[in-house]
Formats: sequence, C-alpha cells, structure tokens
Amino acid sequence: MTYSVAVSGASGYAGGEVLRLLSSHPEVSIGAITAHSNAGGKLGGLQPHLHTLADRVLVETTVENLLGHDVVFLALPHGASAEIAAQLPKDTLVIDAGADHRLEDPLAWEKFYGSAHAGTWPYGLPELPGHRERLRKAKRIAVPGCYPTSSLLALTPGFAAGLLEADDVVIVAASGTSGAGKSAKPHLLGSEVMGGMSPYGVGGSHRHTPEIEQGLSAAAGEQVKVSFTPTLAPMSRGILATATARVKPGVDGERLRVAWAEAYADEPFVHLLPEEQWPHTKAVQGSNHVALQLAFDEHAGRVIVSCAIDNLAKGTAGGAIQSMNIALGLEETTGLSHQGVAP
Amino acid sequence: MTYSVAVSGASGYAGGEVLRLLSSHPEVSIGAITAHSNAGGKLGGLQPHLHTLADRVLVETTVENLLGHDVVFLALPHGASAEIAAQLPKDTLVIDAGADHRLEDPLAWEKFYGSAHAGTWPYGLPELPGHRERLRKAKRIAVPGCYPTSSLLALTPGFAAGLLEADDVVIVAASGTSGAGKSAKPHLLGSEVMGGMSPYGVGGSHRHTPEIEQGLSAAAGEQVKVSFTPTLAPMSRGILATATARVKPGVDGERLRVAWAEAYADEPFVHLLPEEQWPHTKAVQGSNHVALQLAFDEHAGRVIVSCAIDNLAKGTAGGAIQSMNIALGLEETTGLSHQGVAP
Amino acid sequence: MTYSVAVSGASGYAGGEVLRLLSSHPEVSIGAITAHSNAGGKLGGLQPHLHTLADRVLVETTVENLLGHDVVFLALPHGASAEIAAQLPKDTLVIDAGADHRLEDPLAWEKFYGSAHAGTWPYGLPELPGHRERLRKAKRIAVPGCYPTSSLLALTPGFAAGLLEADDVVIVAASGTSGAGKSAKPHLLGSEVMGGMSPYGVGGSHRHTPEIEQGLSAAAGEQVKVSFTPTLAPMSRGILATATARVKPGVDGERLRVAWAEAYADEPFVHLLPEEQWPHTKAVQGSNHVALQLAFDEHAGRVIVSCAIDNLAKGTAGGAIQSMNIALGLEETTGLSHQGVAP
Amino acid sequence: MTYSVAVSGASGYAGGEVLRLLSSHPEVSIGAITAHSNAGGKLGGLQPHLHTLADRVLVETTVENLLGHDVVFLALPHGASAEIAAQLPKDTLVIDAGADHRLEDPLAWEKFYGSAHAGTWPYGLPELPGHRERLRKAKRIAVPGCYPTSSLLALTPGFAAGLLEADDVVIVAASGTSGAGKSAKPHLLGSEVMGGMSPYGVGGSHRHTPEIEQGLSAAAGEQVKVSFTPTLAPMSRGILATATARVKPGVDGERLRVAWAEAYADEPFVHLLPEEQWPHTKAVQGSNHVALQLAFDEHAGRVIVSCAIDNLAKGTAGGAIQSMNIALGLEETTGLSHQGVAP
Repeated sequence: MTYSVAVSGASGYAGGEVLRLLSSHPEVSIGAITAHSNAGGKLGGLQPHLHTLADRVLVETTVENLLGHDVVFLALPHGASAEIAAQLPKDTLVIDAGADHRLEDPLAWEKFYGSAHAGTWPYGLPELPGHRERLRKAKRIAVPGCYPTSSLLALTPGFAAGLLEADDVVIVAASGTSGAGKSAKPHLLGSEVMGGMSPYGVGGSHRHTPEIEQGLSAAAGEQVKVSFTPTLAPMSRGILATATARVKPGVDGERLRVAWAEAYADEPFVHLLPEEQWPHTKAVQGSNHVALQLAFDEHAGRVIVSCAIDNLAKGTAGGAIQSMNIALGLEETTGLSHQGVAP
Repeated sequence: MTYSVAVSGASGYAGGEVLRLLSSHPEVSIGAITAHSNAGGKLGGLQPHLHTLADRVLVETTVENLLGHDVVFLALPHGASAEIAAQLPKDTLVIDAGADHRLEDPLAWEKFYGSAHAGTWPYGLPELPGHRERLRKAKRIAVPGCYPTSSLLALTPGFAAGLLEADDVVIVAASGTSGAGKSAKPHLLGSEVMGGMSPYGVGGSHRHTPEIEQGLSAAAGEQVKVSFTPTLAPMSRGILATATARVKPGVDGERLRVAWAEAYADEPFVHLLPEEQWPHTKAVQGSNHVALQLAFDEHAGRVIVSCAIDNLAKGTAGGAIQSMNIALGLEETTGLSHQGVAP
Repeated sequence: MTYSVAVSGASGYAGGEVLRLLSSHPEVSIGAITAHSNAGGKLGGLQPHLHTLADRVLVETTVENLLGHDVVFLALPHGASAEIAAQLPKDTLVIDAGADHRLEDPLAWEKFYGSAHAGTWPYGLPELPGHRERLRKAKRIAVPGCYPTSSLLALTPGFAAGLLEADDVVIVAASGTSGAGKSAKPHLLGSEVMGGMSPYGVGGSHRHTPEIEQGLSAAAGEQVKVSFTPTLAPMSRGILATATARVKPGVDGERLRVAWAEAYADEPFVHLLPEEQWPHTKAVQGSNHVALQLAFDEHAGRVIVSCAIDNLAKGTAGGAIQSMNIALGLEETTGLSHQGVAP
Repeated sequence: MTYSVAVSGASGYAGGEVLRLLSSHPEVSIGAITAHSNAGGKLGGLQPHLHTLADRVLVETTVENLLGHDVVFLALPHGASAEIAAQLPKDTLVIDAGADHRLEDPLAWEKFYGSAHAGTWPYGLPELPGHRERLRKAKRIAVPGCYPTSSLLALTPGFAAGLLEADDVVIVAASGTSGAGKSAKPHLLGSEVMGGMSPYGVGGSHRHTPEIEQGLSAAAGEQVKVSFTPTLAPMSRGILATATARVKPGVDGERLRVAWAEAYADEPFVHLLPEEQWPHTKAVQGSNHVALQLAFDEHAGRVIVSCAIDNLAKGTAGGAIQSMNIALGLEETTGLSHQGVAP
C-alpha cells in the first residue's frame, strides 16, 4: 500500500528536506505540497535541487489542502502548526517538525516559548529508551529539535545506565546555518557567516535547553540540569555536539563504553565509531546516520561525547520519516539513505 | 540478475563516490574493493561516510583481485589503469575513470600526457550525439573528465545544430577541490583554499583541453578550438562551467534555445532550466543531474552557456554508472538519485 | 595637515571598508559617520570589527551632516549619491563608491541603469593610461565598480600597446558575496551560498559591462566589445577575473609579457607575478594589492589574464582612498596596507 | 631606535603572520628570514600575500643566521626551538612561538610532550595578572598556545576575583585550520574540511590542557581542573572558545560582569562587548583584538564566557609582537592593527 503524504512549509529547508527524502521513499506518494507566501508558484523555482518535483505547484497551507492524505508533515513557523493540527482527522498521521508538541511540561513551554502549551505528542526519537514503542501506531508525532537530537543521542546511554551525575551537564554544539531557516536575516548572510563562528542563545536561554533536559531527565530518572551553548558554523549542514557529564564515582572508561555500545548495538542509524575514530559531520551529510564517539577524561572526571548529525536529515526530516515508518508499521529504514555525501 | 562489481582506487574520492552510488544500486552487488597503499585496512576508516561498507577490507589492486567480476571500475592515477585493463577478460565490463582511454588522437594524448597512447574506448557521455549507441553492450568505457563533461554538455547542442562558429570557444570553469583528488598537496590544504579562488593550468596546457575539443569537433563536424581555463573554488564539490562560443550570422536567441531544448528534451539527467533561472552547483550536489541555462549576448555575438554539475557525481562516478547501466542493458537511471542535496 | 572625512553608508560593507582603511590613515581624521536606516545607533553594533570606532554614533545621511568636511565618501544605493553630491561644495572632495558618475556615455547609463545620467566624474583607477593625471587635484571622483577594476587592470596593457583585437573580449569573473552588499536577500543567505557557485547577470545584462567596455575602448582607441559573466563564489571577499582577448597576428608571448610588465613596472599596487606563479585572491585579501598573471594560448590565439583583487579593498574602498591620496596631493600609498591577510 | 628582527620558520603560517605584522611595525627592521626545507627560495613564492617581502631570500635556520639581531622570533616545530634558543646570546630577545618554554611544571611537559622539559620563560599573555611585569625587559618570551590564549582570557577574571569553583571547568573551542599548520596532512585537505566539523584531541589528551590549567590555577590560587575539547571548523582563521565554570554560591551576574569589566577596563586589546552583543571571530580576523562576552546561567549554576580571537594574530604572532613591544619598552600597541578584517 502506498501512503499519500502532504508536506507543508515546502519552500523552507525543513520542508524541502522532507520532500527530498520522501521522493525516493518506495511506500509513499507525495500529494499536496503547500506553502504560505509562495503558494501558486512551481516548486522548481524555490527548491531547484528537487528535480523530479520541479513542476509541482505549491498550494496554500490550509486545512482543506491538507485533508485527504494518510500522512501530513508540518514544517511551519512556531505556533502555526498547533492550530492546523487540531483540525486534521484523528486517524491522519500528523508529523510536526515544529516545537509546539515536543515538551511535556506546560510551564517549561510557556517560559521558553511565551505562548500557551499546545499539548504533548509522541517524541520522534525512537533510539531513546521507551520511545520506539510510543511511536508504533502513533497518529501524532513531534519531531525533536536538531540540537536535542544530537544532545540526547550523545548522553542518554550514560544516564540510562546510571553512570552519570545529573546536575552539571555541559553541551556546546556547532551547527550549520540551515538550522536557522531560510528567512533572510542579516546575520545569516553568507558574507556574515563565511569564514567565522559565533555563539548565540547563550546562558540557558536557548529553547532547546528544556527539550534536552526533558529527555536526559527521563533517562536518568531524576532532574538533569544542562548548560547548553549553540554556535553558528560556516557550513550549510551539520551539527557537531560536544556533550559532557560528570561520571559517577567508581565508573571507568570500560563501563562507559559498554553502556553506549549496548545502547546502540541494534540501532540501524546510530553508530558508535571504532575507538580512536572521531565523528565528522561530513560523514553523515545528507544521511540519517549518526556518528558518536566518547572519551573518558579521568583527570576532569567527565565523559565527553562527540556526536555528529546532519541537522536537516536525522535532525529534522530524516528523523521525521524514520518515525513515520515506525508509526505506519513499515520497516524503520525505508527510504532513508545510509551513506553520507562526502566529500 | 545481479552484477558483481569490483572497485579499485576505493580510498580516493572517485572510488568512494562510485561505492557510494553503487551501494544503493538495485542490480549490483559490490565485490572486491581495492586500494594501493591502503590495502589491508577497513573501508570505514578511510571513507567514514560509507556506513554500510565500513567493515569491508580493502585488498590490493591486482588483476587477481579484480578477476571474476562482471564489472570492474578503475579509479586510479593516470597511467595505472591501462596496464591493468589490458589483463582483464574481454567480456568483463571495464569502466575507467582515468584519462587513459578518452582521447582518440594518439598525438594529442602524447602531447598532453607525455606517455604512449593506450587506445580509445567508448566515451561515457551518452548525451552526446551518437554516444549512447556506442555504449550499448560496450565492454570498455572511458569515463570523461569532469570539466569535459560540463563543457561538452554545455556547448554540444549548438555545434550539433550548426549554430556556432568553431574557431573561438572560450570556457572558464570553477571546480570544487575534490576534483583534485585526495593526495595531500600543500595548495589543496583547507587553509590555502578556503576563502579564496585561484586559476591553474592556464593558457591551453590543461589536459582537459584536447578532450573538450575532441567532443565539440565531433559535434561540429570541424575542428573546434577551445581556450579553457580552470579555477579552484572554495567548495568540496561542484563545477560551474561558463562556456561561450560565437554565434553564426543569422542565428537568433530563439533558434539557440530550441537547439538546446531539443537536444535534451528526452534526457533524464540534463535539464535546461526555465528561462531566467540560472544553475547552482548546490542544486545538483550529490546528484547525477545537470543544470543548464543559456543566454544570447547579441552585443558580443556570443552564446553563453552556464552548466552546473557535481564533479564527483555526473562528472565522474555518476556518469560512469549511468554508462554502466546502458552497457548492461539496464534502465539508464537505475541507482542514480535525481535529487540534489541542498542546502 | 589632517583632512576631515565624512563617510556615508557607514553600515554597509563598502562604507565599513572605507572606515576600516581610513582608521589607520595618518593624514585623515574621521568626522561624520552617516547611515540611512541605522542612524542613531552606535557603529560598534553594526560594524563590530571596527573596534576603535565602536562608540561612534551614526547620524543621518543628510547634506547638513556631510558639510564641513574636506572629504566626503558616498557609499550609498545607486541613484542616491548623485542628488547629495550635487549639494556639496565644489571644493569638497567628493568620492562616490556608487555607479552614478562612472560612465561617460549618457545613453549607456540610461540603458543599463534606467535613470537619467548624473554626469561623469574622474574615474578612480589611476593605473589606467592618463587617469592618474585626471585625479590630481580632482574634487569629484567616481570609484570604479569592483568587476571593472579587475577587468580593466587585467586587459588594458594589451590594448594600450595595440596587441589585442577589440571585438571579442570574454571575461568570466568569480566574486565573493560582499560584492552584493549587506541587504538580506534570500539568495545571499549563507545556506544558499556556501558550498556552491552560480552565475548571474549573464548575457550582457550586467551593469559593469558598459563600464568595462568604456575603459578598454579608451585604451584601445576603438570600440571594444566585451562578453562579461559574473559568478558568485562561496567566499566573503575577493574577485578572480579570467579575462581573455584575441591576440593580433604577429604578436608573441614575449611582446605580451613586456607590455604588461612595462605597464605596471612602477605601480605600487599592481603586481605582475613571476612566471609560473598564478594569482590567489587570498594573497590580496584585505589589501589594496592586485596580483596578475598572463598566459598566451597560441593554439586558441588568445591571451588569458588572471587578475585577483579584494573587491572591498582595491575594488572599492582601497581604490577610493588611493584616488583620494592622489587628489589631495598625498603620497599615493598613504594608509594602504601592502600585505594581504592570509591564510 | 630600530630593532633588527630575525624570523625563523618563515614559510609556515605562524612565521608568515609574524612577518605580516612586523612589516608594518615602525620600530623594527626585518633581518634574516629563515626556513628549513625552503631555504634558498624567495619568500614571494611561499608567502604570496607578503608583497613587500616578495624578493627576500630565505636562509637556513641556523644559529649563525639568527645571530646579530636584537630580536629573534622562533616559529618552528616542537622541540626545535629549545636547542636553537640555548645558543643565542643572553641579551638577544628570543620569542618562541613553540610550546617548549610555556609550561612551568616539568612533569606536565614530559607527560604531554614526551621529551625533556627545556625550561620556563616569561609567558607572553600580558593581560593575565602579574604577567605584564614579567615581560618588561624580558629577554626570553614563550608565546602562549592559541587555545590557551582564548581560554585564559575567557576565564581568568572570574578566578582572579575568587568567583568561580576550581574543580570543573569545561571548555569547548572551535578553531580555523591554520592552527594546524601548513604541513600537508590528509585530514587538513580542503575537501576534508570544507562543509563540516570534527573534534580531535578529545578526553584530556590535548597538549593545551596543562597550559590552560596552569594559567587558571595561577589566577585562582588553587589547582583548577579543565576538560578541554578542541574542534576543527571550516574556516582558515579564528578561534571561538566557549568556556564555562561553576559559579561560587552567592555570586550573581552583576558581580561576574564587574569582575570581567574591571579586569579588562584598561586593556587595549581585550574588549568585553556591550551586553547582548556576542563575539564573532570575523570581527577580530587579522587583528590583535579579543572579543568577549559572558552570560550567567543561573539554572545551571555556570558562567559561560565566549571568547573570539584570531588564532594567528592574537593567538600567535600578534600576541608575540605585543609581548615584544613590552619587553623592548615600546608602546604596547605599536604595529598592531586594531581593526578586524570583515566581512
């Protein structure tokens, strides 16, 4: 059976990546492709890399246009998706790339997003403990933020195995610019970005902080506190997350490595690299794959986990489609390329 | 039927791209993966983006290791392939990414490569007039150079339609660094390349010049003279070729556009963009697709054709696999992704 | 004597570069710093690299604010400068980085810019034959466009020496994104630009074409026709121009090289590189220096000249200040760094 | 008085940057320019950006060639400088960009560098408490490592003011590739680096760890433990250090900000940015300037300090020349440009 899929926000980077991956997914047929201000135009002019979809005409992002599909992907500005999702049938699989339904705590939502909490949907990161189950047969899926994807995959095994202290996690991540979206903001101009790096959202204010704490706390069974600093790197795609946590007394490097190895032993997309090999975002570029490595700094008493993902692939669209496969009962890796595009 | 394929030069960029594309080709199974100095190691350490082939062990590039396969891809330093190819069975399909068998004129070969001419094989650019036929059932294929691929696709339609003057073609192309290979040469260091551009092989000395002239002359039915200047751009992949030729008297923009449109109307990979839309190498990154656009500069009396390809995909491995499909009698687009990876 | 200088358009790239260079010019003191929409704010927030000017407050770009200075730099959108300049005193040295006063032919101006011709001012490229004289004691200076600077420096020596054919010049140039300015246009986003290249203004429509033809024709003594294609490269600064012209019969490589060598023998900023060394834009980054090399392609009958400049330095602000020095009777190299910033 | 200066390792990035800055230093004249394998060649072919020094011939790095100068800069591979320095006169000012004389603890040196400790020289980071004094009239100066420069400037004020806990500093830094030098290693190829990021020296093994701990411990008056993770970014220059330390109980954001503001209030090169403005490495590119910002993450109990430097300027050559100025009794900012080169 082929599932009909509608994709909104099709002129943006997230929507474009969803379309790119869906276009080679053997079990779906792409239905309505919607956009807000670009409705009426051909997709080819906005997403020239999607050659087989070049002549598709974008329609407006309305409930009417999204109805009648088995699956609806929402890749819209924050706040916009909650309203639309509420009007879609219960048996439509709605997958939201926005933040609206990721957080469980309404207070955390209101504090960081400044609006009313829209509710909580199953979280689209199946590699986390217990998450795969919740995605099976789900009809609503909240796609994780890209930084949380890399941060949670980096540290969850250690917390789930009870090896890490919960109170002082420090994560510094570097992201390519596509994570900031396609709107023309001055600081995202090529001339501003190329050749340099800068931080933003420093000091606990970044909206992904509560999302990262939510996932790590669930794994740890206690409140985990995270200092998260994102930085903007001069590349289009990729996130390199450097995540550190203090190691509990008595835990050695061997136990740490075993915990991560076991956590991901059967995962098709998450790959703990051979010892001495460190992740490179280019090795997972354009791919749903995740590369991890860890080192135990005994002197500092911390484990440092390096995690590389493609922010648009596993960090957004790839993760979304992986979750879709689970929800539809398809083989989890369907339509998701394993190879990175390098160099 | 599944065809067994051996890939030599597997630790380089060309060999790596062949493997990347073959790994999702439904009609092949990857056999021996060979390298010269890296034999004995695992592929994962050298090509970390090829996740599903990470545990494959590289063997030495010997005739013994290459025997017994239906198809053998050679991606070796110049000169190395001729010798090996001569020792492979006649009914093995041998596809050479090197230059050794591209040129038809032994004198041109000796002049530009300084060694004895190894012979001429069917040229792996099926979109050129008459070339597809020569590739059907071929047992030997010479993969074009990346610059010739972009240059020939850019200008051949005009010459084939008799619209262009043969004596003064000027081509300036910008290429990503992967075209220069993986050997650690100082001028290819990131610190040398990033943030700037430089030309090389200026003044007619670049080895791709005779190859470009060969193809254009064949289409024109007379000797075409080309001034070709390559430049190195601060990107990993991509070639943007700006190719100009003088337009014959009486030819207008409409006739020009029709010639190119008709030449590529039925081609699955070559795409003359809608008017006003110009090619971007990122729109074809990682893809076998080619984006073209032309403009008639009446004032200067020249047609300017802009052609964007991915130097490793359509420019090397993608073009090679496309030709392989034809030679094996498979559907030409088998295993070749149409979508570019952008942003 | 110290000259007081006002700089308008101070929040843009051109204005910022003028300020950067002026800040270490021993004979000037920086007076009013003006902007349009950013008036009232501190410079440090808009141009964080200008540390010593961080606390300067931008004032509005009005004639009132520009009055009372010895020198006024205008770095404004096209059309804006003509009006303001007309209201400044005759003995104020007004230097316009915009296009308004570059062209001599009103018809060419109207054709390419679609407005009334504002007049012609001395052209700020002193290396061209006869131009230095016109700049001495000038009170109005039109700063050349960046592409014309590189193109004219590349080919003028050959035309001035009567060695080149006038009718078929082909120039392809690659520029960093700062040449496109600081306004937030989608195609200039880092995510769009990084990792790829694309052409624009193809087919003779680019506004720099008449400017290039003007300069070359003056040197040649006859109408020179130019096919000019600009391309956008994934770097912030730099222009690499590849300029070719057909060589007249009987002219050999030696005569060509002598023409260029003699043309620039005494020039402090233009440097014909030793044979075999080719220009790299990074070698002139942040500097007023120009690197040139030429090759005679006998087979194609063309000389190919490669010229590297920094589009914001020699291509805009550096060239402007160099011309200012001449107009004020200062030593021409005052305040202009000779070293490029590499890597 | 003009001081004669010899520069060794002149073909590398550090040596090249020393020459670039010295070439516009009003109080020095550049004497011998030495290199190891490139001796005999002209500087212009190796450092094309140093236009005014293009015709200088490199001589071999021998004590003979270095004698007779007031100042000698050593920019050599680790281990090489100690031997040469020992043979230079006591009253020659010897400035070592290598690591050999940075550490005070011989055990730390042996552990991280695997050779005998050569001794300790005054540390070339005058902004650190007490350091400026030691540099006055110094005859030997050890230039700090680039990562230590950014890390120490980032956190020292907090430790010196007694506001931070010593036991759990976490620093993640991103560096441009020039920090890795000019030797042609495969992982430093443009094709490997561009478009992605990767970590290295993870887990406490990086040699800059003891150097960072040394400086912070001195400021704190107790042993500070640091987890330091460097990452390689796709840019030529720049370091963005994200340095975090736990804040002592009772310390608030105001006290933190005052500590940093006071520490750098009179420093010519270190600049605590206005609140809300975050450092960008491009704003200090090519400049000896340092941009800092801090945020107090009360939730996580940590101060996060972001520090941007140019690894070759303030991080190596600029810092070296700044220290030289102090040692020679010159005004500290002599010959050091304050403006960054942006975009």
